[in-house]
Amino acid sequence: MAAPHLDEFERIARFFAPLAAPQALGLLDDVALIDGPTGEQYVLKTDAIVEGVHFLPDDPPAQVAQKLLRVNLSDLAAKGATPFGYLLTTALPAARDEAWLEAFAAGLAADQKTYGIGLLGGDSVATPGPVTLSVAAIGRIAAGRAVLRRGARAGDRIFVSGTLGDAALGVIAAKGGDLGIAPAERDFLIDRFRLPQPRVALGPRLVGLATAMMDISDGLVADLGHICGVSAVAGLVEAERLPLSPAARAALARDPDRLASVLGGGDDYELLFTAPAAAEAQFLTFARETGVPITAIGRIEAGQGVRVTDKDGRDIAVKVAGYEHF
Amino acid sequence: MAAPHLDEFERIARFFAPLAAPQALGLLDDVALIDGPTGEQYVLKTDAIVEGVHFLPDDPPAQVAQKLLRVNLSDLAAKGATPFGYLLTTALPAARDEAWLEAFAAGLAADQKTYGIGLLGGDSVATPGPVTLSVAAIGRIAAGRAVLRRGARAGDRIFVSGTLGDAALGVIAAKGGDLGIAPAERDFLIDRFRLPQPRVALGPRLVGLATAMMDISDGLVADLGHICGVSAVAGLVEAERLPLSPAARAALARDPDRLASVLGGGDDYELLFTAPAAAEAQFLTFARETGVPITAIGRIEAGQGVRVTDKDGRDIAVKVAGYEHF
Repeated sequence: MAAPHLDEFERIARFFAPLAAPQALGLLDDVALIDGPTGEQYVLKTDAIVEGVHFLPDDPPAQVAQKLLRVNLSDLAAKGATPFGYLLTTALPAARDEAWLEAFAAGLAADQKTYGIGLLGGDSVATPGPVTLSVAAIGRIAAGRAVLRRGARAGDRIFVSGTLGDAALGVIAAKGGDLGIAPAERDFLIDRFRLPQPRVALGPRLVGLATAMMDISDGLVADLGHICGVSAVAGLVEAERLPLSPAARAALARDPDRLASVLGGGDDYELLFTAPAAAEAQFLTFARETGVPITAIGRIEAGQGVRVTDKDGRDIAVKVAGYEHF
Repeated sequence: MAAPHLDEFERIARFFAPLAAPQALGLLDDVALIDGPTGEQYVLKTDAIVEGVHFLPDDPPAQVAQKLLRVNLSDLAAKGATPFGYLLTTALPAARDEAWLEAFAAGLAADQKTYGIGLLGGDSVATPGPVTLSVAAIGRIAAGRAVLRRGARAGDRIFVSGTLGDAALGVIAAKGGDLGIAPAERDFLIDRFRLPQPRVALGPRLVGLATAMMDISDGLVADLGHICGVSAVAGLVEAERLPLSPAARAALARDPDRLASVLGGGDDYELLFTAPAAAEAQFLTFARETGVPITAIGRIEAGQGVRVTDKDGRDIAVKVAGYEHF
């Protein structure tokens, strides 16, 4: 009889959480905070991506490099930190030639300029398997100011940046699924999946206002569940309020069941945060300054778990388990 | 016509060095130094290992975990830093079950205790390929005190810790090669390959005395070549002075050509450092305190390159390219 297979969270809780240093926040926050120069802390985050799992063999190498960096920068932004630098490890099969590596490095160079970061070191090894890439990113923040997942309080509003569901719909389109939308809309969604836009300008502005924050990588409902779980509160999302791009709105108009991709799909890398309702006016200013919309989508209540309601206040069943990146 | 294949150093120089932040020391030192709390710096180092390249599929998972950690801790020690914590990424195929992961985590736990470090965070992903593991290790050192590779000066002596060549001879034995030595000696050599002993107690003691330092992972001659290259000096090694374990000595007695493994073989993870001759008396004290022998093996001269001479002062030809971990 095969042993039951543990999912990633169970594996972390069982095998790795007991190894965590105090600075790792019990591995509940996806980052560690270590003391920096006077008055500052470093925020540490690591993420790996694998060819055939997180990106496709034919994806342009510059885009692969940028996705690798950006998923890490998104985590730093979601703590309110400003990106500083990164370490890189590459495991490459012999078939990846210098042209691939040159384009990959060009992607890194472009994003280093965009985000004001530098390469701090790395390791390059050979592998008989798929391209496997890992980044350890380092950000800086004023000491004690990082926005953790555990601070959500009953009465807070729930906010998100940007639009939701684009990446998950983009995965469907990239795999050849017919969303019944115009080619330009389809391309927009695929782009949103291929190249996240980490909210590095917005995240630091939310420090001192947001009570809890993370980025959306596993899907809205799953990630809100993480905030609610460690904050010991319940989350209520009103589906009518979810911010949708014109392309996602068109896809939902054709097939309302695509709402599942908006609620459960990952890879949007938008900020999900909670704050008192009084902060909303300030958020509108930040949205104007950064060009990134901010939308209130629900509220935090006493209790536990995440509920989603439709326009008539009825619960919508949400399937959150098993989101696959593609 | 295929493009000529660049080796790892050429790839780093061409594609990654232009991306390096100032703190990365031009990627010439294998570590970065960033500002820490007042008066301190953090030393950052990352290393990846791949199943089938750096370890064997049947290697005990606890030992794989320990080798992964220790190769990184060895680099920190070689700068004079004290280890502090690490980030871990694991890419695991589905066939690696919970038992494997449990043993792997137990290996990490044991070494965390041995070396006084904690897990700062990580990422666990699935892969269709071989087990691929990456660690980003962080050490601490007094600001400005890290021992770099670039400080070797003509007139310095060259020193090494421990004994040399054991790991390379251990690889030969592990692959079934007959060294003509006793089984206990054979097992000793294989152990030296499987489980490095990073010199974490010795490294920090050498701060202020050693003018240049690194650990030996690519082989004595290649790694001394790195020190000499960035220090713009020449290195002269007297083969008669090389510290050998009884097992390595027995293997060389059977086949003097095995000297190539001592000079060119990697994976010993001993400290290689340069210092004025006057420091040698102090080193003997450190050797007593830490239980790790320190041996003078040659000297730094004006010029460039690395020469090895025999007991009659004649040059020994050394093949350094193409060391394979196994």
